[in-house]
Amino acid sequence: MQGRVPLAYTVPSPGTSSDPYVRTERTVPTRHRERASYDRELVHSILDEDYICHLGFVRDGAPVVLPTLYARRGEQVYLHGSTGSRPLREADSGEGLPVCLTVTRVDGLVLARSAFHHSLNYRSVMVHGTAYRVTEDEELTAALDALVDGVVPGRAADSRRADARELAATAVLRLDLTEVSAKVRQGGPSDDAEDLALPHWSGVVPVSRVYGTPVPAEDLAPGTELPAYLKGR
Amino acid sequence: MQGRVPLAYTVPSPGTSSDPYVRTERTVPTRHRERASYDRELVHSILDEDYICHLGFVRDGAPVVLPTLYARRGEQVYLHGSTGSRPLREADSGEGLPVCLTVTRVDGLVLARSAFHHSLNYRSVMVHGTAYRVTEDEELTAALDALVDGVVPGRAADSRRADARELAATAVLRLDLTEVSAKVRQGGPSDDAEDLALPHWSGVVPVSRVYGTPVPAEDLAPGTELPAYLKGR
Repeated sequence: MQGRVPLAYTVPSPGTSSDPYVRTERTVPTRHRERASYDRELVHSILDEDYICHLGFVRDGAPVVLPTLYARRGEQVYLHGSTGSRPLREADSGEGLPVCLTVTRVDGLVLARSAFHHSLNYRSVMVHGTAYRVTEDEELTAALDALVDGVVPGRAADSRRADARELAATAVLRLDLTEVSAKVRQGGPSDDAEDLALPHWSGVVPVSRVYGTPVPAEDLAPGTELPAYLKGR
Repeated sequence: MQGRVPLAYTVPSPGTSSDPYVRTERTVPTRHRERASYDRELVHSILDEDYICHLGFVRDGAPVVLPTLYARRGEQVYLHGSTGSRPLREADSGEGLPVCLTVTRVDGLVLARSAFHHSLNYRSVMVHGTAYRVTEDEELTAALDALVDGVVPGRAADSRRADARELAATAVLRLDLTEVSAKVRQGGPSDDAEDLALPHWSGVVPVSRVYGTPVPAEDLAPGTELPAYLKGR
């Protein structure tokens, strides 16, 4: 099955990284341990393919999960938001904000003969740690560029960069990639032997994210050409 | 701009629902309040379009965010997992598991002339509450069917339903839709007036999730036809 599912991505074989992330109690799953990986290249490849994460933090003892942009630079992940937003104010307290950052790519719907063995093909990354406010100018600017380029590579250089007023209104958080794991499921359904003769179709429906034809802003000056970095998308 | 961005979905006008969700301190955002909605139909439409949520809970005082399947039935959202998994064991304690369940659909990349006004078009739902283990047989079966049909409508009836052993290995959680909000951004970029003459292209790149041609399992009996519910996808 695995060979017949078109893969738009490469999953490094387990153990190819010479320097994997260290496992901790909370990065080793209780279920499907065989799907977990601590491979640095695999983690980077998943993080670099997406730009939206779900950021979890605790407010008044209760969990909150916010969808937000992120970008990786080396062994750091950067997030940004308004200086007035609650999680960013909390991260600014000096002690930082304990977070769990999760990125999930869905690659396929796995249809087994049994309802029980239905599954998804996916690649996900979970980062545990403490996010701190970035205060150093050079790191701040580089992080903001990375956030724009993470969504559309090449765009940061082709837009007006933030001025002093905008920078003052923007908080950037840094989260180190230290307590990290990936989880990957790929391939076809794994039905129980006694179910193979059932008449239900089984296999994988590939899922992907696609980009449509760019739609110009209504106030775009006539004749403004679509930039090359948007043409191939 | 808004009229020119192809919308694959309908967003009910604010206030069309005669019975919106009640606002609470944590469902009113500190930022972009104009994007928030408590419209029941809007919330349902976003939840019904997807099947993967990010579930946040607190473990040992720290946040955890898990990607997982969900399905809505009326004013409940259902989740499932192994009876051995940590969050499901915790939800089974009687007191339930405090969670934040977030669903995010990305509809477009919004490219403004200024880096600062770059944005995403999206529709998201955030549910705060306490998840409880479902113990009643009829509700359990209906929830499992909904979880399968949420991914592929029509599939639950065309697969072998869970037997007693599988049911015993599966925990289903119920989360009531009471403390709920949606957040929606749509339309084009909103550049500052003084940036409109800048030479950078601006507009929206539509984003959507697409399904590829189903790939049969290697052990699928030759001649097994692709079911009708997978053909139009």
